[in-house]
Amino acid sequence: MIDRIQRLTAYRRSLERLKAAGILRVTSGLLAEASGTSASVVRKDFSVFGLQGKRRGGYGISEVLEGISTILEGVSRQGVVLVGCGNLGQALLRYAGFSGDGLAITAGFDTDPARINRRGKPPILPPGEMSRVISETGATIAIIAVPDFAAQETLNRLAELGIRGILNFAPVHLHAPAGTHVRNVNLEMELEGVAWLASLPAGAPDKEDA
Amino acid sequence: MIDRIQRLTAYRRSLERLKAAGILRVTSGLLAEASGTSASVVRKDFSVFGLQGKRRGGYGISEVLEGISTILEGVSRQGVVLVGCGNLGQALLRYAGFSGDGLAITAGFDTDPARINRRGKPPILPPGEMSRVISETGATIAIIAVPDFAAQETLNRLAELGIRGILNFAPVHLHAPAGTHVRNVNLEMELEGVAWLASLPAGAPDKEDA
Repeated sequence: MIDRIQRLTAYRRSLERLKAAGILRVTSGLLAEASGTSASVVRKDFSVFGLQGKRRGGYGISEVLEGISTILEGVSRQGVVLVGCGNLGQALLRYAGFSGDGLAITAGFDTDPARINRRGKPPILPPGEMSRVISETGATIAIIAVPDFAAQETLNRLAELGIRGILNFAPVHLHAPAGTHVRNVNLEMELEGVAWLASLPAGAPDKEDA
Repeated sequence: MIDRIQRLTAYRRSLERLKAAGILRVTSGLLAEASGTSASVVRKDFSVFGLQGKRRGGYGISEVLEGISTILEGVSRQGVVLVGCGNLGQALLRYAGFSGDGLAITAGFDTDPARINRRGKPPILPPGEMSRVISETGATIAIIAVPDFAAQETLNRLAELGIRGILNFAPVHLHAPAGTHVRNVNLEMELEGVAWLASLPAGAPDKEDA
């Protein structure tokens, strides 16, 4: 199911681009090509989510976009905090994909006093204020970008404070208490995966491609 | 198979930490717990890669680490370039996980003259020098961190220059020519996935957890 939800995000982006290009209707095949999946997956996803708007000439883009917004509304209305404002953390704080209509980071936290920036957008605050900010903003999601040795402790603290979903960039496996969900983005592993694909003899099957 | 290769990277990290903690041997169960997988997956992976060193009391950590190094040697000896040195690109240039023993970024490229930094480690150069640098360093891997509208064109150019593996951070589906492999890291989709998990009623099955 999480794959379906993630594909919805991809469809939304593709549909917005197609709409901006002046297109009014798409077939499942065209949307699949733009989103990197297959027409049958698009049709199945649309059916699961009850996305309507299919007529001759394909789905009405505006209609489908509205449907996707409704589905993702509850998902996107959650507050996000980020812990660990080193190079990667600061880049994520400013990452455009995290500051659009949907999910937006409300604050960053760092133990290093030199990184505190109360006037930043979003601000970077000391960890002592995490409890207050999470409670005031009702944030339920956190991004962990601390060094690996500090990651588990950070997760434990966030879970205590009511955080329910965590996107973890620390390259270490974290143990989450029941009711807290962790997704790992291990950049080193992703790069090693690509390197392995690149090291294959030319012409080797590449069905592993994303 | 790419999952297996990526797990090898995770095992290596876990084993290095265990070794640093003074431990000499691990069971598949302990390694699985540290790496976020199951003991049977560890045993299967070790068997597929012919990793030896199992005796009573588990696998010898040094022996397994040597085996993993040998397997990954060809993979890790490839040069990496990065295209697009905005916030995210610059964070990736400095990302410690990309500058260790293995894969390291040799240069970044950006069209914005203000971002050029020839003395940087790694340097940031204008795109006009991409052909020379890739040919001189023999780089076969690239990271794309350009805005989405420029991503496909960047991929095409990199493929022409002999790049065989691409890690794409632009939130758009790219079409790769035969022989070029693309892996996508879509941070927005990852965050939406976590947000969806966090929005589930407490107690809902969380088998989607990473």
